[in-house]
Amino acid sequence: MEQNTATKPIRCKAAVSKVAGQPLEMEEVEVAPPRAHEVRIRILCTSLCHTDLTFWRLKDFPGQHPIILRHEAAGVGEHVHEVAVGDTVVPVFSAQCGDCPDWRLPLRPQLPARPGMPRDGTARFSFAATGEPIHNFTGVSSFTEYTVVDVAHVVRLKPGVPPEKACLLSCGVSTGVGAAWKVAAVEPGSSVAVFGLGVVGLAVAQGCRMRGAKQIVGVDLNPEKGRISGKRLGITDFINPNDTGEKAVSEVVKEMTGGGADYCFECIGSTSVMAEAFQSSRKGWGKTIALGVSSGVAPISIPPEDILMGRSLVGSLFGGLKPTADIPILAQKYVDKELELDEFVTHEMRFDDINRAFELLTQCFIWMGGDRENGVGVEALDNA
Amino acid sequence: MEQNTATKPIRCKAAVSKVAGQPLEMEEVEVAPPRAHEVRIRILCTSLCHTDLTFWRLKDFPGQHPIILRHEAAGVGEHVHEVAVGDTVVPVFSAQCGDCPDWRLPLRPQLPARPGMPRDGTARFSFAATGEPIHNFTGVSSFTEYTVVDVAHVVRLKPGVPPEKACLLSCGVSTGVGAAWKVAAVEPGSSVAVFGLGVVGLAVAQGCRMRGAKQIVGVDLNPEKGRISGKRLGITDFINPNDTGEKAVSEVVKEMTGGGADYCFECIGSTSVMAEAFQSSRKGWGKTIALGVSSGVAPISIPPEDILMGRSLVGSLFGGLKPTADIPILAQKYVDKELELDEFVTHEMRFDDINRAFELLTQCFIWMGGDRENGVGVEALDNA
Repeated sequence: MEQNTATKPIRCKAAVSKVAGQPLEMEEVEVAPPRAHEVRIRILCTSLCHTDLTFWRLKDFPGQHPIILRHEAAGVGEHVHEVAVGDTVVPVFSAQCGDCPDWRLPLRPQLPARPGMPRDGTARFSFAATGEPIHNFTGVSSFTEYTVVDVAHVVRLKPGVPPEKACLLSCGVSTGVGAAWKVAAVEPGSSVAVFGLGVVGLAVAQGCRMRGAKQIVGVDLNPEKGRISGKRLGITDFINPNDTGEKAVSEVVKEMTGGGADYCFECIGSTSVMAEAFQSSRKGWGKTIALGVSSGVAPISIPPEDILMGRSLVGSLFGGLKPTADIPILAQKYVDKELELDEFVTHEMRFDDINRAFELLTQCFIWMGGDRENGVGVEALDNA
Repeated sequence: MEQNTATKPIRCKAAVSKVAGQPLEMEEVEVAPPRAHEVRIRILCTSLCHTDLTFWRLKDFPGQHPIILRHEAAGVGEHVHEVAVGDTVVPVFSAQCGDCPDWRLPLRPQLPARPGMPRDGTARFSFAATGEPIHNFTGVSSFTEYTVVDVAHVVRLKPGVPPEKACLLSCGVSTGVGAAWKVAAVEPGSSVAVFGLGVVGLAVAQGCRMRGAKQIVGVDLNPEKGRISGKRLGITDFINPNDTGEKAVSEVVKEMTGGGADYCFECIGSTSVMAEAFQSSRKGWGKTIALGVSSGVAPISIPPEDILMGRSLVGSLFGGLKPTADIPILAQKYVDKELELDEFVTHEMRFDDINRAFELLTQCFIWMGGDRENGVGVEALDNA
C-alpha cells in the first residue's frame, strides 16, 4: 500500500459469517484506518482450523455475528513503530503487550478476546453498502483482504518463510511445538503420548522429537495418521482407540511405555480424552498438557488419589509461547530445516473457495466420529 | 539393643487399632526379626496427624485391622548395611528404593502401601498371647516400642536433631516444605495462597518464605492460625472463609494478590477446596499443588476453559522429596536454625496417653467444621 492510504479507509473483499453455522458470504467491506497501537495489514495467506468451526457455529459471544473469522494469517504491516510498511508479519490471537504484569513469568496468558479491537472495543470493519459494523475475532480476523490488528497481536518475520507457511506459525504448529518446548519442557529420552493427531497433535509430536523424546505414541481414530504424516513428524507408535478391544487406551499406553507416559498431550478438546490422557501418564511425575479448545463440554473430573500420586495437569492456549520472542525462533528453525511446515498443508485454495475449505474440514470432523482437531491439516487460503 | 537380639523376636508394647474408629488398645506384641533389606528399630518418639485418623476410621484396606498405625517416627537401626546399630533413623512412608525406574526424574512416586512388608507382603507384628498377625501401616507402623521397616523406608540422620523434632521430618513438615521447594519451586517475589493451616499448610508457608515469596495468604477457619503460629512461620495475610460474606475465597485471594496467587496449596484433602484453590490461582501460569490426603471424596472438577488459560494442577504425597537425599538436608537446616520445627509441637504426651492424643486431634477436627489438617499441630508421643 502507498503510505498516504494509512489514514483512509480501504474497501476490499471479506468472507463474512452472518449467521452461526451458515456459509460465509463474500462482501465488500470497509476497513477503517488503524488507530493508536494498531496495524492495518494486507492478508496474503490464511489457514483454517477447528477453532474456526467451533466459533463459527456459536450463536453467542464470542462468536458474535456478523464477524470476520480466523486467527492464523500472514500479511504486510502499515503503521506503528514496532513494524514498518512492507514488513512481513504474522497476526496472532495470543497478545504480547509487553507492559502488563502478565508478562513477568515464562508462561504467558492471553488478553481477553473481545468482539471489537482489544484496547477500545470498537470495530474497524463495516459493510461497504450499509456501514453496519462487523465484529473482529480474537484480535485477528484474517478472512479478509485487509484487517486491522493491535500491535500486541502482530509478530514481524524476517524474510525466508513463504507466507503460505508462515501462517501456520500463527496458531496450530506453534501451539503444538511450543507445548512440547515451553509447557512440558520434554526431557531427552522421555516417553510421550499424543491424543489427537490433527495439526496441533502432529506439531506436538514434532516438538517432542526435537526435544529428544525416545518414544512418541500417537492416538487417533484415523489409521492414516500413524502411517503417513505421523511417522515423518516423529510418531513411533500408534494406537487406534477402535482397535484396543476391551482395554482402555490408557492401559495400552501404560503397557507400551512401561508404566505410563512421561508426558501426555490432549489435542482434541474433549474432557473425557483429557481424563484418559491423565490416566495414561506415569504415576509419580507424569504431566498431562491440555491444548484442545472446548466449548460447552463437561468439566474435567479427576479422582483426588490420582492427583496425589504426583501427576500433574496443565493447560495452555498457545503452547506457552511469547509470540514476539518465540515465533521468530520457530521461523528460523524452518529456514534452517529443523522445523517441518510443508507437511501440514493438505490443500491450497483460493480465498473465493473458503466455504469449500469449511466443508472439507467439517466433513473430516464428522468422519472422525466427533473428535475435534483430528482431521485434515491446515488449509492455506491464497488471496494474493 | 544388643547385637545378638537381631535374629530373635522382641516382645514389647504396641497401641493396636483393632476396630476401625475405636480406641487403640495397648497390647504386648511380638516383633519378628528383620528379613533381608529390613531394619528393626526402637521408636523413641512418634507424632500424629490427620492421615492417621483417616485410616484409623477406614473399615476396608488400606486400614485393615488389627493394625499398628502411624507413619512419622524416629528410632534406632538394628540391621542392614545402609544403617548401623545405634544410628538415629527416621522411618518414612514414602520409599526410596534406589533401583527402580521410578527414581529417574526429580519427583518421586511411592511404592504401593500394603498391609504387610513391602517386599514380601508378610507381617512382622503378632499378638504375643495368640500369635495372630497384626498389619503394618504404610511400611512404618510406629505406634509401638519396636517396629520393622524396609530399608527403603528408612533415612539415617546425623546427630543434632532431637528425636521429638526429628519425627516431624518423616511426614508433615517435610511434605509442606518440600512442596514449596520441589513441587512448586516457588520463585522469589511470588504470591502464595495456602488453604488449611495445619502442620502441612504451616510448613508450606515456611517453605515459601524460605524460597523468597513476598506474599503468603493463609486460609483457615481458625482465626488463631493467622495470628499466632502462622505469622511466625511466614503468613503475611489471612482469610477466614467465614468472614468473606458473599464473596468466594478465590475472589478475595484475587483481590489481595492483584489477579490471583502464583502458587496455591491445598493442604486439607477436600476436592471442593482444591477447586477453590485452583480458581484462586493466577490465570496464565498459576500453579495449584494438592497435598491433602482424601478418602472417598468426589473427584475434583475443573472447567476446561480454566485449564486452557495456562493454570496447572499438580499433586504430591511427600512434597516431591527423595527421603534419603532430602530429609538430611532439612535436618541440617534445623541445626542451622533455618528451619523451624519446635513451633509445630503443640503437645508432648507419653505413649500410654495415645488415645488422649487421638481425642485432641479428633475434637480439633470437629471444631474446625469438618476440615481436615486444620487442627492442632503434631503430637510428639514419648515412649522413651
